[in-house]
Amino acid sequence: MSEVKQGAQLYEGKAKKVYATDSPDQVIIHYKDDATAFNGEKKGQIEDKGVMNNKIASGLFELLEKSGLPTHFISRLNERDMLCKKVTIVPLEVIVRNVAAGSMAKRLGLAEGTELKTTVFELSYKDDALGDPLINDYHAVAIGAASFEEIEKIKALTFKINDVLSAFFLKKGIKLIDFKLEFGKTNTGELVLADEISPDTCRFWDAKTNEKLDKDRFRRDLGNVKEAYIEILNRIG
Amino acid sequence: MSEVKQGAQLYEGKAKKVYATDSPDQVIIHYKDDATAFNGEKKGQIEDKGVMNNKIASGLFELLEKSGLPTHFISRLNERDMLCKKVTIVPLEVIVRNVAAGSMAKRLGLAEGTELKTTVFELSYKDDALGDPLINDYHAVAIGAASFEEIEKIKALTFKINDVLSAFFLKKGIKLIDFKLEFGKTNTGELVLADEISPDTCRFWDAKTNEKLDKDRFRRDLGNVKEAYIEILNRIG
Ligand SMILES: Nc1ncnc2c1ncn2[C@@H]1O[C@H](COP(=O)(O)OP(=O)(O)OP(=O)(O)O)[C@@H](O)[C@H]1O
Ligand SMILES: Nc1ncnc2c1ncn2[C@@H]1O[C@H](COP(=O)(O)OP(=O)(O)OP(=O)(O)O)[C@@H](O)[C@H]1O
Ligand SMILES: [Mg+2]
Ligand SMILES: [Mg+2]
Repeated sequence: MSEVKQGAQLYEGKAKKVYATDSPDQVIIHYKDDATAFNGEKKGQIEDKGVMNNKIASGLFELLEKSGLPTHFISRLNERDMLCKKVTIVPLEVIVRNVAAGSMAKRLGLAEGTELKTTVFELSYKDDALGDPLINDYHAVAIGAASFEEIEKIKALTFKINDVLSAFFLKKGIKLIDFKLEFGKTNTGELVLADEISPDTCRFWDAKTNEKLDKDRFRRDLGNVKEAYIEILNRIG
Repeated sequence: MSEVKQGAQLYEGKAKKVYATDSPDQVIIHYKDDATAFNGEKKGQIEDKGVMNNKIASGLFELLEKSGLPTHFISRLNERDMLCKKVTIVPLEVIVRNVAAGSMAKRLGLAEGTELKTTVFELSYKDDALGDPLINDYHAVAIGAASFEEIEKIKALTFKINDVLSAFFLKKGIKLIDFKLEFGKTNTGELVLADEISPDTCRFWDAKTNEKLDKDRFRRDLGNVKEAYIEILNRIG
């Protein structure tokens, strides 16, 4: 591949920056060390998080592509940058829950770690001002965030992604408790998995000890935050 | 029908009481004048509400039965009492929204009265301590509140009920903005519409003026609360 030129910054988010490239179909996603929680209320830094998340996400996107699942990932360019297909993000946070934790546990009065009678597929409306509220398929369609057909496609992809990732992590001694995905449409209209998959966006528990190996260590001041990210990186190799 | 004997009180809710009868398959539902809002935070009385809601709900259950939709309704016994099939309530509040209002408008940052791109079917988990939180189908199944099959049946019945009620009210010059239903299982395992349908559980707007003719007049201190219930009763005749 020829050298990729970094163009104008298109967006700065809480954890990443997005840059244009020479190609209107591609963006560079730059991973920062900034960490936030509770809709931006809590702010901090995790040393080298950007470097680790770029590596972790790249590896996982490659795994999914190999499993036939379409993603925005093209290549890892360097320590903090990833080359991706430019997409228009569907304004939904897609959450999968294999075990009750976080906001779902709180909302439904369940102890964290409660086994669920079925895997949960959940949507939030991506709107910071509204606090990314939980919605259902009908709400998403009612407000024009997506069509029923798009949601069905997203659902099918998401359950497959969950199968691939859960099996992969279990082999590494890690339980994939829950995770958040974002989907987008490329310039050619293809629906692909976008954004990132990392300890920022997943709950990872050690399969033996249930030790948390993800951003909950930052959210809940559990200590050894950086070490958790290093552990995930080492385990997935 | 032979005389129905009122047995022990089985339950006292915020708006109704439920009594046993001689038959293990039947209950008496008694309509009170008590009115509450915001999950019981606001309390009051609306004069003769119980009498009016008993009449309104009886008429609407009869309409639905005539349209082939199964309900718990057997007969109106007197001013405040209704004889019903005893059911085990599915612990879900089933909400239909034809127009954005109330909690959905607030949650999604929409002005009340906003037209929706699709009719919204919504579930809340019936749990006062948790504040009846919004959930989706997967949550309901994950926590054992219902099975996917039950939810599909409830969905199909609910959309038919919406069609019948919306058309009926429109003929009376009333827009059915949204409403809450509860379903239950009879002793023979039949899934039927239960609880009540009334200005306590529906949003009714005058089709010409958009004047509110429902419990929002109580919730929001709009005055003429009793008059709104009388107006609904008169219009449906
Ligand atoms: N392939 C892509 N093309 C264009 N935008 C993308 C792509 N992948 C992810 N994005 C978007 O780039 C941004 C990444 O920044 P970051 O994740 O830090 O944002 P954020 O602070 O989480 O805020 P938000 O996600 O609410 O915009 C997100 O808005 C994400 O939706
Ligand atoms: N046919 C029926 N058989 C048994 N119970 C019923 C039937 N129809 C409705 N119910 C239940 O009877 C109660 C009616 O009381 P009311 O509506 O005042 O309760 P509430 O204060 O709204 O509280 P909640 O609905 O949360 O129990 C409700 O719990 C309702 O679910
Ligand atoms: Mg993000
Ligand atoms: Mg009730």
